[in-house]
Amino acid sequence: MRPSVLESLALEATTKIVLLVLDGVGDLPDPVRGGQTPLEAARTPNLDAIVPASALGRLQPVAPGITPGSGPGHLALFGYDPLETVVGRGVLEALGAGVRLERGDVAARANFCTVDGAGVVTDRRAGRIRSEECARLVGALRAGAERIEDVEIVLEPGMGHRFVAVLRGAGLAGDVSDADPHKEGKPVPVAHALAASPSAEKTARVVNAFVARAREKLRGEQPANGVLLRGLSARPGLPGYRERFKLRAAALAAYPMYRGVAELAGMEVLPVGETPADAFAAAAKRWREFDYFFIHVKGTDMAGEDGNFGAKVETIETVDRALPALLALEPDVLCVTGDHSTPVPARAHTWHPVPALVRASLCGADGAARFHERAARAGSLGVLPSRDLIAILLANAGRLDKYGA
Amino acid sequence: MRPSVLESLALEATTKIVLLVLDGVGDLPDPVRGGQTPLEAARTPNLDAIVPASALGRLQPVAPGITPGSGPGHLALFGYDPLETVVGRGVLEALGAGVRLERGDVAARANFCTVDGAGVVTDRRAGRIRSEECARLVGALRAGAERIEDVEIVLEPGMGHRFVAVLRGAGLAGDVSDADPHKEGKPVPVAHALAASPSAEKTARVVNAFVARAREKLRGEQPANGVLLRGLSARPGLPGYRERFKLRAAALAAYPMYRGVAELAGMEVLPVGETPADAFAAAAKRWREFDYFFIHVKGTDMAGEDGNFGAKVETIETVDRALPALLALEPDVLCVTGDHSTPVPARAHTWHPVPALVRASLCGADGAARFHERAARAGSLGVLPSRDLIAILLANAGRLDKYGA
Repeated sequence: MRPSVLESLALEATTKIVLLVLDGVGDLPDPVRGGQTPLEAARTPNLDAIVPASALGRLQPVAPGITPGSGPGHLALFGYDPLETVVGRGVLEALGAGVRLERGDVAARANFCTVDGAGVVTDRRAGRIRSEECARLVGALRAGAERIEDVEIVLEPGMGHRFVAVLRGAGLAGDVSDADPHKEGKPVPVAHALAASPSAEKTARVVNAFVARAREKLRGEQPANGVLLRGLSARPGLPGYRERFKLRAAALAAYPMYRGVAELAGMEVLPVGETPADAFAAAAKRWREFDYFFIHVKGTDMAGEDGNFGAKVETIETVDRALPALLALEPDVLCVTGDHSTPVPARAHTWHPVPALVRASLCGADGAARFHERAARAGSLGVLPSRDLIAILLANAGRLDKYGA
Repeated sequence: MRPSVLESLALEATTKIVLLVLDGVGDLPDPVRGGQTPLEAARTPNLDAIVPASALGRLQPVAPGITPGSGPGHLALFGYDPLETVVGRGVLEALGAGVRLERGDVAARANFCTVDGAGVVTDRRAGRIRSEECARLVGALRAGAERIEDVEIVLEPGMGHRFVAVLRGAGLAGDVSDADPHKEGKPVPVAHALAASPSAEKTARVVNAFVARAREKLRGEQPANGVLLRGLSARPGLPGYRERFKLRAAALAAYPMYRGVAELAGMEVLPVGETPADAFAAAAKRWREFDYFFIHVKGTDMAGEDGNFGAKVETIETVDRALPALLALEPDVLCVTGDHSTPVPARAHTWHPVPALVRASLCGADGAARFHERAARAGSLGVLPSRDLIAILLANAGRLDKYGA
């Protein structure tokens, strides 16, 4: 579906949509568990009560066989084509670190590293220094060095040797090569513009000045006496939910990465606690102000990554126990799905389609007994690209006009 | 899926993939056979043993309702978009005749025909002469006529009045009109360049010289005293499996056409006997040298074309009896499918989706009892374009990186 067609049909309405994303919820039958998946094994009486009157189906996040990262997985659920809407590595890293990006910002993933007397990188990770040491060194880099030319430098320490560097100012661009040799035994390369534009050239100049200044400021430090920058990328200026779909959209997500991607889509990111109950309560509190609520649950993905079947079941059951509070809000459209599969046997994101449930007055009642991978295969929604989900939600919310007479 | 994205994610690995193509295996429930298809009717104990732990689905070779020829059917299975990757008729005919095409070759389908004194074609098929006569006449055309300008002329006799002509040399092109009136009662048209390029003009010149020289050499022959050339096309320079997917690919196919298409895709075509057991033994012999094995079984398609239910069942059972030797190789990914359907009641290729089975450690166990059209409809792979199969195989082989962070 070409976005321009969809957008041209978007209507104002008073209906409410809830997109409840159980991150990585899709799974595979686990031979160790009698061939069940966590969704099959979990006790979910509250969800079960709404399943028969819901439409089920499966979402394909990017394309057959393609395993999505969290960025593409969520952008697709938000109605952006994940192959066309590319968010750079630096931007995703910055969002994940909780840095709030402004339009025009250019972000980079950064490392502390060890450089020898001849300027050759001898350890790209500076001996994997501890996070506390990283924070101290980022403090040292910040001190009295807030700007280069007219560009503000925003630094945020991360895990171990990693940190995030954001350049903020006018006339910057992301198409700049890495100031990172990507292997030991070479000097730090000079960053250069990858496009013949003054903004890329300016950005490269600032990056190189930052790297040089960091070397000076870190003189005498060991092992972290240098920095590397890679994945430079500009915060994309995506058309937002309000202008695309006439939706006032709110995001309830505890983890910075998802808050960041939601903000890129023009959602208002609301304060929220860690649990599903917290998220549902936060939605209830602001229920009148918004048309669309994106609620993110991280635990399912973490359990999948850990290969922890029990923890994935427990997260699903925790969501189910809290669900009555969400159902009590009587959203016109409720969708429960995931951004990708993180099967317990795989211990990682995978390419498998993700089960999805849509409940609305005109969704069509599939009559399934429960919501899980197997039931979703037979559902009336079939297999949909994730990026088309928004159209199904808008349609069920009475927010899409007829196409043609 | 844009190929460039898929290719950018391809990883080196040591896993092995087997694509077992039962040509034309897809069928329709046959009322004469109690509504069963050949896959349902066949006794396949060895295949049945791996079905429950496999993922099933259906492949759409080109597009809904579109019946593929063998070329597009296989190109799609090999991961090429069959609507964008066009292999000309002349090239397919040459591959089918067992002519090994080199890069830059231009191939044409050719006929012997009958021409009257005024140069008008009176029989486009020269009275459908027998194949032996065709071979004799091709010998006559070859004698002392290996070149025109600096272009080598390679001729290969075919069935009846048909033969293949290949032009081999520098600066040739396929965009040349037919030297064939396509109906009786007209003279043989002069071939002309369809693009304003020196290579198309040179090719047209050589074609016209070949047609004129053939008239001279066939003077006195009856009824085959002339030739027609059509479907001129250059061997496409497709990016191969190695560069696209980091796969060392081998093809085991007894019939020239499939060997030829595999070679276009950059596979190494290995020597092989006629039976499935021969093909599996040949794969075993070279198992360590390759990452991917395309194994082609022709009998299912021939039986379908003949409307012979029993012969199709027998071919499937022959594959099944040989299967243990293939399974003993323990491929990391095994896919059993077809390039298109050739239903017995249709006695021809058709547009119906083709059942597919994928078995791998993370394929997801659908729990089906057997592999056939009906079971495939409920499978977790859903309906996939055939060209996306390669992504599923690569993903299951751990040969695709994650897309985005």
